[in-house]
Amino acid sequence: MDIKDFKKFHETVLPEFDEFLTNKINAEIKQPTLRDAMLYSINAGGKRVRPMLMLAVVYSCGTKLEDLYQYYDIAGAIELIHTYSLIHDDLPEMDNDDYRRGKLSNHKKFGVGPAVLAGDGLLTQAFYWIAKSNLDTSKRMAAVRILAHNAGPMGMVAGQMTDITKEDRQLNEEELTTLHKQKTADLITAAITIGAFCAGHDLSTHLVEYANYVGLAFQVKDDLDDFGSEEDADKNTFPNLIGKDATEEKLRNLVKDALNAVLKEQKFDKNLMVSFLDYFKD
Amino acid sequence: MDIKDFKKFHETVLPEFDEFLTNKINAEIKQPTLRDAMLYSINAGGKRVRPMLMLAVVYSCGTKLEDLYQYYDIAGAIELIHTYSLIHDDLPEMDNDDYRRGKLSNHKKFGVGPAVLAGDGLLTQAFYWIAKSNLDTSKRMAAVRILAHNAGPMGMVAGQMTDITKEDRQLNEEELTTLHKQKTADLITAAITIGAFCAGHDLSTHLVEYANYVGLAFQVKDDLDDFGSEEDADKNTFPNLIGKDATEEKLRNLVKDALNAVLKEQKFDKNLMVSFLDYFKD
Repeated sequence: MDIKDFKKFHETVLPEFDEFLTNKINAEIKQPTLRDAMLYSINAGGKRVRPMLMLAVVYSCGTKLEDLYQYYDIAGAIELIHTYSLIHDDLPEMDNDDYRRGKLSNHKKFGVGPAVLAGDGLLTQAFYWIAKSNLDTSKRMAAVRILAHNAGPMGMVAGQMTDITKEDRQLNEEELTTLHKQKTADLITAAITIGAFCAGHDLSTHLVEYANYVGLAFQVKDDLDDFGSEEDADKNTFPNLIGKDATEEKLRNLVKDALNAVLKEQKFDKNLMVSFLDYFKD
Repeated sequence: MDIKDFKKFHETVLPEFDEFLTNKINAEIKQPTLRDAMLYSINAGGKRVRPMLMLAVVYSCGTKLEDLYQYYDIAGAIELIHTYSLIHDDLPEMDNDDYRRGKLSNHKKFGVGPAVLAGDGLLTQAFYWIAKSNLDTSKRMAAVRILAHNAGPMGMVAGQMTDITKEDRQLNEEELTTLHKQKTADLITAAITIGAFCAGHDLSTHLVEYANYVGLAFQVKDDLDDFGSEEDADKNTFPNLIGKDATEEKLRNLVKDALNAVLKEQKFDKNLMVSFLDYFKD
Protein backbone atom coordinates (compact mmCIF):
# COMPACT_ATOMS: atom_id res chain seq x y z
CA MET A 1 0.00 0.00 0.00
CA ASP A 2 1.70 3.15 -1.21
CA ILE A 3 -0.78 5.78 -0.10
CA LYS A 4 -0.92 6.12 3.66
CA ASP A 5 -2.76 9.41 3.94
CA PHE A 6 -6.55 9.59 3.48
CA LYS A 7 -6.48 13.06 1.88
CA LYS A 8 -3.98 11.84 -0.66
CA PHE A 9 -6.07 8.72 -1.33
CA HIS A 10 -9.20 10.86 -1.75
CA GLU A 11 -7.44 13.23 -4.18
CA THR A 12 -6.06 10.32 -6.18
CA VAL A 13 -9.26 8.32 -6.60
CA LEU A 14 -11.91 11.07 -6.72
CA PRO A 15 -11.57 12.33 -10.33
CA GLU A 16 -11.98 8.86 -11.85
CA PHE A 17 -14.80 7.97 -9.47
CA ASP A 18 -16.65 11.22 -10.24
CA GLU A 19 -16.38 10.52 -13.95
CA PHE A 20 -17.65 6.98 -13.40
CA LEU A 21 -20.75 8.22 -11.56
CA THR A 22 -21.69 10.76 -14.22
CA ASN A 23 -21.03 8.43 -17.15
CA LYS A 24 -22.97 5.57 -15.65
CA ILE A 25 -26.07 7.64 -14.86
CA ASN A 26 -25.90 9.27 -18.29
CA ALA A 27 -25.70 5.88 -19.99
CA GLU A 28 -28.48 4.23 -18.00
CA ILE A 29 -31.19 6.83 -17.41
CA LYS A 30 -33.10 7.69 -20.58
CA GLN A 31 -35.97 9.77 -19.14
CA PRO A 32 -34.53 13.28 -19.62
CA THR A 33 -35.99 15.10 -16.57
CA LEU A 34 -35.15 12.17 -14.32
CA ARG A 35 -31.59 11.96 -15.64
CA ASP A 36 -31.07 15.72 -15.24
CA ALA A 37 -32.50 15.79 -11.72
CA MET A 38 -30.46 12.76 -10.61
CA LEU A 39 -27.24 14.15 -12.10
CA TYR A 40 -27.88 17.62 -10.66
CA SER A 41 -27.70 16.35 -7.10
CA ILE A 42 -25.01 13.76 -7.78
CA ASN A 43 -22.80 16.58 -9.09
CA ALA A 44 -23.75 19.19 -6.50
CA GLY A 45 -20.33 19.27 -4.87
CA GLY A 46 -20.49 16.41 -2.39
CA LYS A 47 -17.16 15.28 -0.97
CA ARG A 48 -17.95 11.57 -1.57
CA VAL A 49 -16.78 10.77 1.96
CA ARG A 50 -18.87 7.56 2.21
CA PRO A 51 -17.75 5.89 -1.03
CA MET A 52 -14.17 7.04 -0.46
CA LEU A 53 -14.22 5.46 3.00
CA MET A 54 -15.53 2.24 1.49
CA LEU A 55 -12.82 2.25 -1.20
CA ALA A 56 -10.18 3.13 1.39
CA VAL A 57 -11.12 0.00 3.35
CA VAL A 58 -10.87 -2.10 0.19
CA TYR A 59 -7.45 -0.56 -0.53
CA SER A 60 -6.32 -1.08 3.06
CA CYS A 61 -7.17 -4.76 2.72
CA GLY A 62 -4.62 -5.10 -0.08
CA THR A 63 -6.41 -4.27 -3.35
CA LYS A 64 -4.13 -2.39 -5.74
CA LEU A 65 -4.99 1.13 -6.81
CA GLU A 66 -5.42 0.02 -10.43
CA ASP A 67 -7.91 -2.67 -9.40
CA LEU A 68 -10.12 -0.41 -7.28
CA TYR A 69 -12.44 0.34 -10.24
CA GLN A 70 -14.00 -3.09 -9.73
CA TYR A 71 -15.54 -1.72 -6.54
CA TYR A 72 -16.87 1.52 -8.03
CA ASP A 73 -20.41 0.12 -8.58
CA ILE A 74 -20.76 -0.66 -4.91
CA ALA A 75 -19.11 2.57 -3.78
CA GLY A 76 -21.35 4.39 -6.26
CA ALA A 77 -24.44 2.71 -4.82
CA ILE A 78 -23.55 4.13 -1.39
CA GLU A 79 -23.25 7.63 -2.90
CA LEU A 80 -26.60 7.24 -4.71
CA ILE A 81 -28.26 6.41 -1.38
CA HIS A 82 -26.59 9.33 0.38
CA THR A 83 -27.65 11.70 -2.42
CA TYR A 84 -31.27 10.51 -2.42
CA SER A 85 -31.43 11.08 1.34
CA LEU A 86 -30.27 14.70 0.93
CA ILE A 87 -32.88 15.40 -1.77
CA HIS A 88 -35.74 14.03 0.33
CA ASP A 89 -34.43 15.67 3.53
CA ASP A 90 -34.45 19.09 1.85
CA LEU A 91 -38.13 18.85 0.81
CA PRO A 92 -40.49 21.57 2.11
CA GLU A 93 -42.31 19.26 4.51
CA MET A 94 -39.06 17.81 5.81
CA ASP A 95 -36.15 20.19 6.60
CA ASN A 96 -37.38 22.75 4.01
CA ASP A 97 -33.97 23.80 2.70
CA ASP A 98 -33.89 25.94 -0.46
CA TYR A 99 -30.14 25.70 -0.80
CA ARG A 100 -27.53 23.02 -0.32
CA ARG A 101 -23.83 23.83 -0.58
CA GLY A 102 -24.72 27.20 -2.14
CA LYS A 103 -26.79 25.67 -4.98
CA LEU A 104 -30.57 25.45 -5.22
CA SER A 105 -31.85 22.27 -3.63
CA ASN A 106 -33.29 19.70 -6.03
CA HIS A 107 -36.95 20.60 -5.47
CA LYS A 108 -36.27 24.32 -5.93
CA LYS A 109 -34.60 23.56 -9.23
CA PHE A 110 -36.94 20.85 -10.58
CA GLY A 111 -40.10 21.03 -8.43
CA VAL A 112 -41.20 18.84 -5.52
CA GLY A 113 -42.70 16.02 -7.61
CA PRO A 114 -39.59 15.52 -9.76
CA ALA A 115 -37.36 15.80 -6.66
CA VAL A 116 -39.27 13.02 -4.90
CA LEU A 117 -38.86 10.89 -8.04
CA ALA A 118 -35.18 11.75 -8.46
CA GLY A 119 -34.70 10.50 -4.89
CA ASP A 120 -36.73 7.35 -5.55
CA GLY A 121 -34.70 6.78 -8.71
CA LEU A 122 -31.33 7.15 -6.98
CA LEU A 123 -32.40 4.88 -4.12
CA THR A 124 -33.63 2.09 -6.39
CA GLN A 125 -30.74 2.36 -8.84
CA ALA A 126 -28.30 1.82 -5.96
CA PHE A 127 -29.54 -1.75 -5.65
CA TYR A 128 -29.39 -2.22 -9.41
CA TRP A 129 -25.74 -1.19 -9.43
CA ILE A 130 -24.92 -3.66 -6.70
CA ALA A 131 -26.81 -6.47 -8.46
CA LYS A 132 -24.99 -5.77 -11.74
CA SER A 133 -21.50 -5.52 -10.23
CA ASN A 134 -18.94 -8.15 -11.19
CA LEU A 135 -18.05 -9.07 -7.62
CA ASP A 136 -18.93 -12.51 -6.23
CA THR A 137 -22.64 -13.04 -5.63
CA SER A 138 -22.10 -13.50 -1.90
CA LYS A 139 -20.31 -10.15 -1.63
CA ARG A 140 -23.00 -8.38 -3.63
CA MET A 141 -25.70 -9.94 -1.47
CA ALA A 142 -23.91 -8.79 1.71
CA ALA A 143 -23.79 -5.27 0.25
CA VAL A 144 -27.55 -5.32 -0.50
CA ARG A 145 -28.33 -6.58 2.99
CA ILE A 146 -26.12 -4.13 4.90
CA LEU A 147 -27.12 -1.13 2.80
CA ALA A 148 -30.87 -1.85 2.95
CA HIS A 149 -30.66 -2.53 6.70
CA ASN A 150 -28.68 0.58 7.57
CA ALA A 151 -30.26 3.03 5.11
CA GLY A 152 -33.85 1.82 5.44
CA PRO A 153 -36.63 1.89 8.04
CA MET A 154 -34.43 0.10 10.59
CA GLY A 155 -31.74 2.77 10.17
CA MET A 156 -31.48 6.08 8.30
CA VAL A 157 -35.17 6.43 7.37
CA ALA A 158 -36.16 5.75 10.99
CA GLY A 159 -33.74 8.47 12.14
CA GLN A 160 -35.18 11.00 9.72
CA MET A 161 -38.73 10.15 10.85
CA THR A 162 -37.75 10.71 14.50
CA ASP A 163 -36.11 13.98 13.51
CA ILE A 164 -39.12 15.44 11.69
CA THR A 165 -41.73 14.23 14.16
CA LYS A 166 -39.83 15.25 17.31
CA GLU A 167 -38.68 18.71 16.27
CA ASP A 168 -41.10 20.36 18.66
CA ARG A 169 -39.52 18.90 21.74
CA GLN A 170 -36.01 18.46 23.13
CA LEU A 171 -34.82 14.86 23.02
CA ASN A 172 -32.73 13.62 25.92
CA GLU A 173 -29.12 12.53 25.39
CA GLU A 174 -29.94 8.87 24.85
CA GLU A 175 -32.70 9.64 22.34
CA LEU A 176 -30.44 12.08 20.52
CA THR A 177 -27.65 9.50 20.32
CA THR A 178 -30.10 7.00 18.77
CA LEU A 179 -31.31 9.65 16.32
CA HIS A 180 -27.77 10.54 15.23
CA LYS A 181 -26.78 6.91 15.02
CA GLN A 182 -29.66 6.10 12.70
CA LYS A 183 -29.75 9.28 10.67
CA THR A 184 -26.02 9.55 9.98
CA ALA A 185 -23.84 6.89 11.56
CA ASP A 186 -25.65 3.88 10.06
CA LEU A 187 -24.78 4.78 6.46
CA ILE A 188 -21.13 5.52 7.39
CA THR A 189 -20.95 2.20 9.20
CA ALA A 190 -22.45 0.53 6.14
CA ALA A 191 -19.78 2.06 3.89
CA ILE A 192 -16.96 0.75 6.08
CA THR A 193 -18.39 -2.73 6.68
CA ILE A 194 -19.40 -3.17 3.02
CA GLY A 195 -15.82 -2.27 2.08
CA ALA A 196 -14.50 -4.97 4.39
CA PHE A 197 -16.99 -7.58 3.08
CA CYS A 198 -16.23 -6.76 -0.55
CA ALA A 199 -12.48 -6.99 0.05
CA GLY A 200 -13.03 -10.46 1.51
CA HIS A 201 -11.86 -9.24 4.91
CA ASP A 202 -13.12 -11.28 7.81
CA LEU A 203 -14.97 -8.49 9.56
CA SER A 204 -13.57 -7.84 13.03
CA THR A 205 -15.40 -6.25 15.92
CA HIS A 206 -12.60 -3.65 16.00
CA LEU A 207 -13.49 -2.35 12.55
CA VAL A 208 -17.21 -2.31 13.36
CA GLU A 209 -16.46 -0.36 16.56
CA TYR A 210 -14.30 2.08 14.58
CA ALA A 211 -17.14 2.50 12.08
CA ASN A 212 -19.71 3.18 14.79
CA TYR A 213 -17.54 5.81 16.52
CA VAL A 214 -16.66 7.48 13.23
CA GLY A 215 -20.31 7.55 12.16
CA LEU A 216 -21.45 9.25 15.34
CA ALA A 217 -18.46 11.63 15.25
CA PHE A 218 -19.62 12.69 11.81
CA GLN A 219 -22.97 13.97 13.02
CA VAL A 220 -21.49 15.54 16.15
CA LYS A 221 -19.01 17.47 13.98
CA ASP A 222 -21.88 18.50 11.71
CA ASP A 223 -23.83 19.75 14.72
CA LEU A 224 -20.81 21.78 15.85
CA ASP A 225 -20.23 23.23 12.36
CA ASP A 226 -23.87 24.43 12.19
CA PHE A 227 -24.04 25.61 15.80
CA GLY A 228 -25.33 29.15 16.18
CA SER A 229 -26.84 29.36 12.70
CA GLU A 230 -30.44 30.47 12.32
CA GLU A 231 -31.75 27.12 11.10
CA ASP A 232 -29.96 25.32 13.90
CA ALA A 233 -31.80 26.98 16.79
CA ASP A 234 -34.82 24.65 17.05
CA LYS A 235 -33.03 21.47 16.07
CA ASN A 236 -32.17 18.51 18.18
CA THR A 237 -28.36 18.71 18.31
CA PHE A 238 -25.74 18.03 20.95
CA PRO A 239 -24.60 21.66 21.31
CA ASN A 240 -28.24 22.71 21.86
CA LEU A 241 -28.62 19.97 24.46
CA ILE A 242 -25.34 19.85 26.37
CA GLY A 243 -23.53 23.02 25.19
CA LYS A 244 -20.65 23.65 22.79
CA ASP A 245 -17.77 22.78 25.11
CA ALA A 246 -19.23 19.48 26.23
CA THR A 247 -19.98 18.62 22.58
CA GLU A 248 -16.40 19.37 21.55
CA GLU A 249 -15.20 17.07 24.31
CA LYS A 250 -17.66 14.44 23.13
CA LEU A 251 -16.22 14.66 19.62
CA ARG A 252 -12.64 14.33 20.90
CA ASN A 253 -13.67 11.24 22.88
CA LEU A 254 -15.38 9.64 19.90
CA VAL A 255 -12.29 10.18 17.76
CA LYS A 256 -10.07 8.76 20.51
CA ASP A 257 -12.34 5.71 20.85
CA ALA A 258 -12.32 5.22 17.06
CA LEU A 259 -8.52 5.39 17.06
CA ASN A 260 -8.20 2.89 19.90
CA ALA A 261 -10.56 0.50 18.12
CA VAL A 262 -8.78 0.57 14.78
CA LEU A 263 -5.35 0.27 16.40
CA LYS A 264 -6.42 -3.17 17.66
CA GLU A 265 -7.14 -4.24 14.08
CA GLN A 266 -4.64 -6.97 13.16
CA LYS A 267 -5.51 -7.95 9.66
CA PHE A 268 -4.94 -4.93 7.48
CA ASP A 269 -2.93 -1.79 7.02
CA LYS A 270 -4.35 0.76 9.47
CA ASN A 271 -2.71 3.90 8.05
CA LEU A 272 -5.63 5.18 5.98
CA MET A 273 -8.22 4.56 8.67
CA VAL A 274 -6.05 6.33 11.24
CA SER A 275 -5.35 9.29 8.97
CA PHE A 276 -9.06 9.62 8.11
CA LEU A 277 -9.60 10.74 11.70
CA ASP A 278 -7.86 14.04 10.82
CA TYR A 279 -11.18 14.90 9.16
CA PHE A 280 -12.58 15.68 12.60
CA LYS A 281 -9.76 18.05 13.55
CA ASP A 282 -10.52 20.70 10.90
CA MET B 1 -51.08 -28.82 -8.86
CA ASP B 2 -54.54 -29.04 -7.31
CA ILE B 3 -55.70 -25.45 -7.74
CA LYS B 4 -56.30 -24.57 -11.36
CA ASP B 5 -58.23 -21.35 -10.94
CA PHE B 6 -56.47 -18.07 -10.08
CA LYS B 7 -59.33 -16.74 -7.95
CA LYS B 8 -59.29 -19.91 -5.89
CA PHE B 9 -55.49 -19.70 -5.56
CA HIS B 10 -55.74 -16.05 -4.51
CA GLU B 11 -58.43 -16.84 -1.90
CA THR B 12 -56.42 -19.75 -0.54
CA VAL B 13 -53.08 -18.00 -0.15
CA LEU B 14 -54.11 -14.43 0.68
CA PRO B 15 -55.03 -14.71 4.40
CA GLU B 16 -51.69 -16.26 5.36
CA PHE B 17 -49.76 -13.86 3.14
CA ASP B 18 -51.57 -10.83 4.60
CA GLU B 19 -50.74 -12.01 8.10
CA PHE B 20 -47.11 -12.53 7.11
CA LEU B 21 -46.82 -8.95 5.81
CA THR B 22 -48.29 -7.36 8.93
CA ASN B 23 -46.33 -9.52 11.35
CA LYS B 24 -43.03 -8.96 9.60
CA ILE B 25 -43.36 -5.18 9.46
CA ASN B 26 -44.53 -5.11 13.09
CA ALA B 27 -41.54 -7.17 14.16
CA GLU B 28 -38.93 -5.24 12.21
CA ILE B 29 -39.89 -1.56 12.32
CA LYS B 30 -39.37 -0.01 15.75
CA GLN B 31 -39.88 3.69 14.94
CA PRO B 32 -43.57 4.05 15.85
CA THR B 33 -44.72 6.66 13.31
CA LEU B 34 -42.83 4.91 10.54
CA ARG B 35 -44.29 1.52 11.46
CA ASP B 36 -47.81 2.94 11.63
CA ALA B 37 -47.51 4.77 8.32
CA MET B 38 -46.01 1.75 6.54
CA LEU B 39 -48.67 -0.61 7.93
CA TYR B 40 -51.48 1.84 7.15
CA SER B 41 -50.83 1.67 3.43
CA ILE B 42 -49.86 -2.01 3.41
CA ASN B 43 -53.25 -2.79 4.95
CA ALA B 44 -55.28 -0.30 2.93
CA GLY B 45 -57.20 -2.94 1.02
CA GLY B 46 -54.89 -3.74 -1.88
CA LYS B 47 -55.69 -6.94 -3.78
CA ARG B 48 -52.05 -8.13 -3.72
CA VAL B 49 -52.26 -8.93 -7.43
CA ARG B 50 -48.51 -8.64 -8.01
CA PRO B 51 -47.29 -10.92 -5.19
CA MET B 52 -50.13 -13.37 -5.92
CA LEU B 53 -49.07 -13.50 -9.58
CA MET B 54 -45.50 -14.16 -8.48
CA LEU B 55 -46.58 -16.92 -6.11
CA ALA B 56 -48.91 -18.37 -8.77
CA VAL B 57 -45.92 -18.72 -11.11
CA VAL B 58 -43.93 -20.46 -8.38
CA TYR B 59 -46.89 -22.79 -7.73
CA SER B 60 -47.34 -23.44 -11.46
CA CYS B 61 -43.70 -24.51 -11.64
CA GLY B 62 -44.42 -27.34 -9.19
CA THR B 63 -43.93 -25.94 -5.68
CA LYS B 64 -46.46 -27.40 -3.25
CA LEU B 65 -48.97 -25.16 -1.53
CA GLU B 66 -47.45 -25.92 1.88
CA ASP B 67 -44.00 -24.87 0.67
CA LEU B 68 -45.05 -21.54 -0.82
CA TYR B 69 -44.26 -19.67 2.40
CA GLN B 70 -40.58 -19.87 1.49
CA TYR B 71 -41.30 -17.36 -1.25
CA TYR B 72 -43.29 -14.90 0.87
CA ASP B 73 -40.28 -12.62 1.52
CA ILE B 74 -39.79 -12.07 -2.18
CA ALA B 75 -43.51 -11.76 -2.93
CA GLY B 76 -43.74 -9.37 0.01
CA ALA B 77 -40.88 -7.28 -1.38
CA ILE B 78 -42.88 -6.80 -4.58
CA GLU B 79 -45.90 -5.65 -2.56
CA LEU B 80 -43.73 -3.24 -0.53
CA ILE B 81 -42.51 -1.66 -3.76
CA HIS B 82 -46.03 -1.40 -5.17
CA THR B 83 -47.28 0.17 -1.94
CA TYR B 84 -44.46 2.73 -1.79
CA SER B 85 -45.24 3.77 -5.36
CA LEU B 86 -48.90 4.42 -4.48
CA ILE B 87 -47.94 6.57 -1.47
CA HIS B 88 -45.54 8.72 -3.48
CA ASP B 89 -47.92 8.92 -6.48
CA ASP B 90 -50.69 10.28 -4.26
CA LEU B 91 -48.56 13.17 -2.93
CA PRO B 92 -49.87 16.72 -3.52
CA GLU B 93 -47.21 17.59 -6.09
CA MET B 94 -47.69 14.30 -7.92
CA ASP B 95 -51.26 13.06 -8.56
CA ASN B 96 -52.61 14.90 -5.48
CA ASP B 97 -55.09 12.25 -4.35
CA ASP B 98 -56.66 12.70 -0.91
CA TYR B 99 -58.29 9.28 -0.96
CA ARG B 100 -57.33 5.82 -2.12
CA ARG B 101 -59.84 2.97 -2.10
CA GLY B 102 -62.12 5.10 0.07
CA LYS B 103 -59.52 5.67 2.80
CA LEU B 104 -57.42 8.80 3.37
CA SER B 105 -54.20 8.65 1.40
CA ASN B 106 -51.04 8.26 3.45
CA HIS B 107 -50.06 11.95 3.42
CA LYS B 108 -53.57 13.05 4.41
CA LYS B 109 -53.41 10.71 7.38
CA PHE B 110 -49.77 11.22 8.48
CA GLY B 111 -48.57 14.38 6.70
CA VAL B 112 -46.42 14.77 3.59
CA GLY B 113 -43.05 14.37 5.31
CA PRO B 114 -43.95 11.09 7.04
CA ALA B 115 -45.59 9.82 3.83
CA VAL B 116 -42.41 10.42 1.84
CA LEU B 117 -40.46 8.54 4.52
CA ALA B 118 -43.01 5.70 4.72
CA GLY B 119 -42.50 5.28 0.96
CA ASP B 120 -38.71 5.42 1.29
CA GLY B 121 -38.93 2.88 4.10
CA LEU B 122 -41.08 0.43 2.14
CA LEU B 123 -38.87 0.74 -0.94
CA THR B 124 -35.64 0.10 0.96
CA GLN B 125 -37.07 -2.68 3.13
CA ALA B 126 -38.09 -4.57 -0.03
CA PHE B 127 -34.42 -5.14 -0.79
CA TYR B 128 -33.72 -6.11 2.81
CA TRP B 129 -36.43 -8.78 2.65
CA ILE B 130 -34.96 -10.21 -0.52
CA ALA B 131 -31.44 -10.20 0.93
CA LYS B 132 -32.62 -11.98 4.08
CA SER B 133 -34.72 -14.63 2.31
CA ASN B 134 -33.62 -18.26 2.58
CA LEU B 135 -33.62 -18.87 -1.18
CA ASP B 136 -30.34 -19.53 -3.01
CA THR B 137 -28.10 -16.48 -3.34
CA SER B 138 -28.34 -16.55 -7.13
CA LYS B 139 -32.15 -16.44 -7.02
CA ARG B 140 -32.14 -13.63 -4.49
CA MET B 141 -29.67 -11.69 -6.61
CA ALA B 142 -31.84 -12.13 -9.71
CA ALA B 143 -34.80 -10.81 -7.73
CA VAL B 144 -32.83 -7.72 -6.63
CA ARG B 145 -31.69 -7.07 -10.19
CA ILE B 146 -35.08 -7.50 -11.88
CA LEU B 147 -36.96 -5.55 -9.23
CA ALA B 148 -34.50 -2.64 -9.15
CA HIS B 149 -34.38 -2.51 -12.95
CA ASN B 150 -38.14 -2.59 -13.48
CA ALA B 151 -39.22 -0.47 -10.50
CA GLY B 152 -36.44 2.11 -10.70
CA PRO B 153 -35.37 4.97 -12.96
CA MET B 154 -35.15 2.65 -15.98
CA GLY B 155 -38.76 1.52 -15.38
CA MET B 156 -41.55 2.57 -13.04
CA VAL B 157 -39.95 5.77 -11.70
CA ALA B 158 -39.22 6.90 -15.28
CA GLY B 159 -42.87 6.30 -16.19
CA GLN B 160 -44.11 8.34 -13.26
CA MET B 161 -41.73 11.19 -14.16
CA THR B 162 -43.04 11.21 -17.74
CA ASP B 163 -46.59 11.21 -16.39
CA ILE B 164 -46.19 14.19 -14.06
CA THR B 165 -44.07 16.27 -16.44
CA LYS B 166 -46.21 15.66 -19.53
CA GLU B 167 -49.65 16.13 -18.04
CA ASP B 168 -50.09 19.41 -19.87
CA ARG B 169 -49.93 17.84 -23.31
CA GLN B 170 -51.44 14.83 -25.04
CA LEU B 171 -48.91 12.06 -25.68
CA ASN B 172 -49.15 10.14 -28.93
CA GLU B 173 -49.94 6.42 -28.93
CA GLU B 174 -46.33 5.28 -28.95
CA GLU B 175 -45.39 7.62 -26.09
CA LEU B 176 -48.43 6.54 -24.12
CA THR B 177 -47.56 2.88 -24.60
CA THR B 178 -44.04 3.54 -23.27
CA LEU B 179 -45.49 5.44 -20.31
CA HIS B 180 -47.91 2.64 -19.44
CA LYS B 181 -45.25 0.01 -19.93
CA GLN B 182 -42.90 1.74 -17.51
CA LYS B 183 -45.40 3.00 -15.00
CA THR B 184 -47.41 -0.20 -14.61
CA ALA B 185 -46.34 -3.10 -16.80
CA ASP B 186 -42.71 -3.22 -15.66
CA LEU B 187 -43.58 -4.14 -12.07
CA ILE B 188 -46.12 -6.78 -13.20
CA THR B 189 -43.51 -8.22 -15.54
CA ALA B 190 -41.03 -8.22 -12.67
CA ALA B 191 -43.47 -10.17 -10.47
CA ILE B 192 -43.94 -12.87 -13.10
CA THR B 193 -40.30 -13.20 -14.13
CA ILE B 194 -39.06 -13.15 -10.52
CA GLY B 195 -41.52 -15.96 -9.80
CA ALA B 196 -40.05 -18.00 -12.62
CA PHE B 197 -36.46 -17.32 -11.54
CA CYS B 198 -37.19 -18.17 -7.91
CA ALA B 199 -38.88 -21.43 -8.89
CA GLY B 200 -35.77 -22.37 -10.85
CA HIS B 201 -37.75 -22.24 -14.09
CA ASP B 202 -35.61 -21.66 -17.16
CA LEU B 203 -37.27 -18.44 -18.23
CA SER B 204 -38.90 -18.77 -21.66
CA THR B 205 -39.64 -15.94 -24.06
CA HIS B 206 -43.27 -17.09 -23.96
CA LEU B 207 -43.63 -16.29 -20.29
CA VAL B 208 -41.90 -12.93 -20.73
CA GLU B 209 -44.27 -12.12 -23.61
CA TYR B 210 -47.22 -13.13 -21.48
CA ALA B 211 -45.95 -10.90 -18.68
CA ASN B 212 -45.52 -7.92 -20.99
CA TYR B 213 -49.04 -8.23 -22.46
CA VAL B 214 -50.60 -8.75 -19.03
CA GLY B 215 -48.74 -5.75 -17.62
CA LEU B 216 -49.95 -3.42 -20.36
CA ALA B 217 -53.48 -4.86 -20.17
CA PHE B 218 -53.48 -3.93 -16.50
CA GLN B 219 -53.02 -0.23 -17.15
CA VAL B 220 -55.43 -0.25 -20.10
CA LYS B 221 -58.12 -1.81 -17.87
CA ASP B 222 -57.34 0.78 -15.21
CA ASP B 223 -57.75 3.55 -17.77
CA LEU B 224 -61.11 2.10 -18.81
CA ASP B 225 -62.31 1.72 -15.22
CA ASP B 226 -61.51 5.39 -14.49
CA PHE B 227 -62.81 6.71 -17.81
CA GLY B 228 -65.27 9.55 -17.45
CA SER B 229 -64.35 10.39 -13.85
CA GLU B 230 -63.49 13.96 -12.96
CA GLU B 231 -59.81 13.32 -12.20
CA ASP B 232 -59.40 11.39 -15.42
CA ALA B 233 -60.25 14.24 -17.79
CA ASP B 234 -56.76 15.75 -18.18
CA LYS B 235 -54.81 12.53 -17.91
CA ASN B 236 -52.87 10.71 -20.55
CA THR B 237 -54.97 7.57 -21.02
CA PHE B 238 -55.93 5.41 -23.98
CA PRO B 239 -59.67 6.22 -23.82
CA ASN B 240 -58.82 9.94 -23.84
CA LEU B 241 -56.52 9.40 -26.81
CA ILE B 242 -58.25 6.82 -29.03
CA GLY B 243 -61.75 6.58 -27.52
CA LYS B 244 -63.48 4.03 -25.32
CA ASP B 245 -64.39 1.50 -28.01
CA ALA B 246 -60.93 1.36 -29.52
CA THR B 247 -59.46 0.98 -26.02
CA GLU B 248 -61.80 -1.90 -25.23
CA GLU B 249 -60.68 -3.57 -28.44
CA LYS B 250 -57.06 -2.92 -27.48
CA LEU B 251 -57.63 -4.64 -24.13
CA ARG B 252 -59.26 -7.67 -25.80
CA ASN B 253 -56.28 -7.94 -28.16
CA LEU B 254 -53.75 -7.71 -25.34
CA VAL B 255 -55.53 -10.48 -23.43
CA LYS B 256 -55.67 -12.62 -26.59
CA ASP B 257 -51.95 -12.05 -27.21
CA ALA B 258 -51.18 -12.93 -23.58
CA LEU B 259 -53.22 -16.12 -23.91
CA ASN B 260 -51.49 -17.13 -27.13
CA ALA B 261 -48.08 -16.50 -25.58
CA VAL B 262 -48.69 -18.58 -22.46
CA LEU B 263 -50.29 -21.42 -24.42
CA LYS B 264 -46.91 -21.92 -26.13
CA GLU B 265 -45.31 -22.43 -22.71
CA GLN B 266 -44.10 -26.04 -22.49
CA LYS B 267 -42.47 -26.32 -19.12
CA PHE B 268 -45.14 -25.73 -16.56
CA ASP B 269 -48.82 -26.03 -15.78
CA LYS B 270 -50.54 -23.20 -17.62
CA ASN B 271 -53.92 -23.34 -15.87
CA LEU B 272 -53.38 -20.56 -13.34
CA MET B 273 -51.82 -18.17 -15.85
CA VAL B 274 -54.68 -18.76 -18.29
CA SER B 275 -57.35 -18.34 -15.65
CA PHE B 276 -55.70 -15.14 -14.37
CA LEU B 277 -56.77 -13.52 -17.66
CA ASP B 278 -60.39 -13.58 -16.42
CA TYR B 279 -59.31 -10.59 -14.32
CA PHE B 280 -59.64 -8.44 -17.43
CA LYS B 281 -63.18 -9.58 -18.21
CA ASP B 282 -64.78 -8.13 -15.07
